[in-house]
Amino acid sequence: MNNYTKKDFPVANVRRLLEPGPIVLVSSAWKGKSNIMTMGWHMVMEFQPSLVGCIVSSANHSFEMIRKSRACVINVPTADLAATVVDIGNCSGRDVDKFEKFSLTPEPGVAVRAPAIRECYANFECRLADTRMVRKYNMFIFEVVRARVATAPKLPKTIHYRGDGEFMLSGAETRKWRKRFRPEML
Amino acid sequence: MNNYTKKDFPVANVRRLLEPGPIVLVSSAWKGKSNIMTMGWHMVMEFQPSLVGCIVSSANHSFEMIRKSRACVINVPTADLAATVVDIGNCSGRDVDKFEKFSLTPEPGVAVRAPAIRECYANFECRLADTRMVRKYNMFIFEVVRARVATAPKLPKTIHYRGDGEFMLSGAETRKWRKRFRPEML
Repeated sequence: MNNYTKKDFPVANVRRLLEPGPIVLVSSAWKGKSNIMTMGWHMVMEFQPSLVGCIVSSANHSFEMIRKSRACVINVPTADLAATVVDIGNCSGRDVDKFEKFSLTPEPGVAVRAPAIRECYANFECRLADTRMVRKYNMFIFEVVRARVATAPKLPKTIHYRGDGEFMLSGAETRKWRKRFRPEML
Repeated sequence: MNNYTKKDFPVANVRRLLEPGPIVLVSSAWKGKSNIMTMGWHMVMEFQPSLVGCIVSSANHSFEMIRKSRACVINVPTADLAATVVDIGNCSGRDVDKFEKFSLTPEPGVAVRAPAIRECYANFECRLADTRMVRKYNMFIFEVVRARVATAPKLPKTIHYRGDGEFMLSGAETRKWRKRFRPEML
């Protein structure tokens, strides 16, 4: 398993990892229990404050844990963890302790009361910032208040879900169109 | 340029193309004018109705066009269009007709009053379904009411934005974890 060395990362830059659309692992805790869920439906909403919108089905054990604790950690796993990511999505925190079952290491959050997953490439500690869309859409708006990202490799090999058991793995990275950019339109 | 042959696609399945997180082109029209914008912040919100949440900055010329027409088409471009995608994001519909400037072909929407872009791999005709998050977050919730997807290749080579002029291109596709899935957790 990975043992990434990480450093602090500007919260306004989490789009560098989330905007390409990887599947993520969401970890949370409430009353001495913790849980992990696999999540594919999320988007960056703002740079500053650093906002991320997420859909968490109310059928998930994590739903109430996040709602009550008003916190979570969004963890970005890499391709080496793909089978674990699938297996995490296949069982419920009602039945198992997922950190234990999948030999993942919880690291206590510094800014929030939720555990980060050490084996992931990036950990974004999030506070629940807006719940008005929870009832109708199961949509949580989080503010990323602390970010830690691996120092190497420079960019992660991420896992992108298509549904129906199919995944796309991240491919080539390129800056070849960078000179075409007008910075103010970035 | 591409000249994809397309067929109707179930709107409940648009996640197969959007969930991996590609950058998309959003086309819209109002009072005889049309426009195209490049958009990286979007997420699937529901299968049925087929809902997609999007952030469209109010600084964009498309913002008012979409708000007034209550419609748009979300188009999925492929890597061959990457330079065009960048250039589209670099100029404003206030100054130029982007269909003309970039030699893209508008195809009138069937279910909505917005033009699709023929050269894109997929076209999702959208009706504005919920505006309550527009004022605070520039977030539009669309319902996909008609979807057309290229018949080949089976999966597109998509473009994923990281910010700062850097892109990730979609890589390998795999079903190797498919057998691990419990269908009810998909």
